[in-house]
Amino acid sequence: MSLNFSQLGRRQVESDIARLMTLAIERPELLSLAAGFTDNETLPLDDVAEIVAGIRRDGDLKSLQYGANQGLRSLRDALTERFTQQDTDCGIANAGSADPDLSIVTNGSQQALYLAIQTLCDPGDVILVEQPTYFVFLELLRGLGVEAAPMPMSDSGDVDVAALNELLAGYEASGEIERVKAVYLVSYFANPTGHTISEECKRGVVEVLSRFEGRIALIEDAAYRELRFSAPVDVPSVFGCAVDMGSDVPVFYTTTLTKPFATGLKVGYGYCNHPGWLKRMLAVKGQQDFGTSRFAQEIMYRAIVGGAFDRRLAVLRDSYERKMQVLDESLRRELEGSGWRWETPKGGLYLWLTAPDGVDTGFDSAFHARCLEVGVMYVPGQLCYPTAGMSKWIRLSYGVLRLEELKMAGQRFCGAARAIAAEIA
Amino acid sequence: MSLNFSQLGRRQVESDIARLMTLAIERPELLSLAAGFTDNETLPLDDVAEIVAGIRRDGDLKSLQYGANQGLRSLRDALTERFTQQDTDCGIANAGSADPDLSIVTNGSQQALYLAIQTLCDPGDVILVEQPTYFVFLELLRGLGVEAAPMPMSDSGDVDVAALNELLAGYEASGEIERVKAVYLVSYFANPTGHTISEECKRGVVEVLSRFEGRIALIEDAAYRELRFSAPVDVPSVFGCAVDMGSDVPVFYTTTLTKPFATGLKVGYGYCNHPGWLKRMLAVKGQQDFGTSRFAQEIMYRAIVGGAFDRRLAVLRDSYERKMQVLDESLRRELEGSGWRWETPKGGLYLWLTAPDGVDTGFDSAFHARCLEVGVMYVPGQLCYPTAGMSKWIRLSYGVLRLEELKMAGQRFCGAARAIAAEIA
Repeated sequence: MSLNFSQLGRRQVESDIARLMTLAIERPELLSLAAGFTDNETLPLDDVAEIVAGIRRDGDLKSLQYGANQGLRSLRDALTERFTQQDTDCGIANAGSADPDLSIVTNGSQQALYLAIQTLCDPGDVILVEQPTYFVFLELLRGLGVEAAPMPMSDSGDVDVAALNELLAGYEASGEIERVKAVYLVSYFANPTGHTISEECKRGVVEVLSRFEGRIALIEDAAYRELRFSAPVDVPSVFGCAVDMGSDVPVFYTTTLTKPFATGLKVGYGYCNHPGWLKRMLAVKGQQDFGTSRFAQEIMYRAIVGGAFDRRLAVLRDSYERKMQVLDESLRRELEGSGWRWETPKGGLYLWLTAPDGVDTGFDSAFHARCLEVGVMYVPGQLCYPTAGMSKWIRLSYGVLRLEELKMAGQRFCGAARAIAAEIA
Repeated sequence: MSLNFSQLGRRQVESDIARLMTLAIERPELLSLAAGFTDNETLPLDDVAEIVAGIRRDGDLKSLQYGANQGLRSLRDALTERFTQQDTDCGIANAGSADPDLSIVTNGSQQALYLAIQTLCDPGDVILVEQPTYFVFLELLRGLGVEAAPMPMSDSGDVDVAALNELLAGYEASGEIERVKAVYLVSYFANPTGHTISEECKRGVVEVLSRFEGRIALIEDAAYRELRFSAPVDVPSVFGCAVDMGSDVPVFYTTTLTKPFATGLKVGYGYCNHPGWLKRMLAVKGQQDFGTSRFAQEIMYRAIVGGAFDRRLAVLRDSYERKMQVLDESLRRELEGSGWRWETPKGGLYLWLTAPDGVDTGFDSAFHARCLEVGVMYVPGQLCYPTAGMSKWIRLSYGVLRLEELKMAGQRFCGAARAIAAEIA
């Protein structure tokens, strides 16, 4: 059979993620520091079952009916209020004008990102991304034929705003600026680095883009915003900064209820200050599924207004902080002085390690093979880079494993690190 | 602000469906024979709540975890077995080789259709469709820039197979055959006509396509297959016919658990005999959402293997048959001899009416205005046609309204019909 696929169809290749998942399935004895999942133990099954029992008691049959394509109004109201309040708490005085009509509920934030790129980009267009960035987003761009162009980064982990300005000037000079459609920022406890972009940087990026009169958009991926540890986050969103600056840069803020509550419900949320852009995203969503599962949305709505969501968040924040500490301390104890470097994160699910000089961490490296041999999986950092290059980084997730498993995984990882160091020396 | 949208983004316009929905929201006093929804009364809230309580009792935390992109294996097994059994029951002896690896779980069957078209069609490509056909599919094609080309139809409501052969020969003669990517068939109790395609026609279409050596695919939309009335369906699927004929035509069979159980769960199912096509659809799904809500899938799995699904189907079949009869009889009584024509369906959610000569049923027609005036909504049949043309058809849905409302809606409709007849005469 010889189907002639579309250009998009022909572009699809096996993903790196699929490769990692196959590895995990074929070798279940491996301890996974790779998967960016939450752990089953903290999933809110009791809460969800109570909520469903409540839906039944209320006779709320319509929760099993079709819903609006844009999403359940009550949920959009609640999420828009929550999002606005978060920015208000971070000092954005005028964030209170948020309008639920500008919001959208999606199948996880992934669909929000997909809709944003579909409506903005033709194949060959450019999205500017951080180095490193969320690797599933890079696969999304590849699937749509869009070029991920790296932004220069400062040592702090922020975008180098002055250098971004020069980069854009370069596109202007070469007549290619029309190809640049948006900047993509993972703004809180980023996947993979754990980094939260500073307010100064956020404002700087908005400032730089403001000179393009609304032709270059900002896509903000705030998936991990709720997953801070003990310390509250005091940095407003990029969206909030743009509001505060009175900027006309189109911004699409995306987040998810999946990571901070239950992945299996797959409910995401977007908020867009550009009605024409949102209208187009909504039209495409109408063609893709005309609306996210209303039952999942109803559960999330009740979880948010009834308090289960915030109670669960408190549990998750404690749990992930503890798990991060266990892995972080185990690595620090054993890798002290060995040349491995990383920052202790303040939220999210990841440690982002830089290997000592000479240690290649890539998929096909001796170090990766050694880790698999001793029974521990990680995500090779190269997957998180838009362009091929050095492979000296590693993403470790403490999301899935239990404390005792995390210790063991840490020991295995450190054992492999010492062995490779001995080989190199 | 002047974002430069992608070609896809620029193609998005307000949909006819959105126009109807806006009307319904703005004028809640209208009785809707338009929406293709199921009614709230028959939604299985008790069943779903029992199932969720069971998930809790079992401590099945992983039902709230991420699932595989392709869908829950247990659900795919159950659905593949069910689908195969249905064709076996219709006399397809060798349907038993069905392989769950060739299946996919989607966000309703709508996403399955979207993935199929994305991977097959570039803008300007052609999908051959019935006249009339599912109007949301026509919007999907428009959104992706794909041309919906009408197939000649026979008086029975089947595709005219000989004429289809000539149509394809025409594309070959003009050198445009490469643009033709697939035939789309709504095979059971179709939206909008209620027609079930005969086995002879299904085999005929497969036969015609077989001469293209797998270059033209078949997309089968079997969304309403489960929603037969009292009489069992004895017609195998197009997929089953292709299996039986040993054909190498790529076929993607899609169906949904949404219509026959709970729309609010939004779980669809696809099965594809072409692994390379499925692989590409899966890759794109990975980019769009990496997997449908696992919780919704777990609920559907338990509903199917635990019997709730079949019990609910029995309720729905009775309920919709009764509702169809009430509307059908009310119209027959009052429109006898008035020139209105339709067939009494054997399943599904729709009556498909042809108006008397001289009566225009379009969006902006006097008849439509009259119906809205007397308080009843319908879907103008012209929306279901791939090309602009006559507007003498009407789709009526008996899904949403209760029996007494259906009677009243029928009376209002007939009143409008008589009034228009008097005006014309």
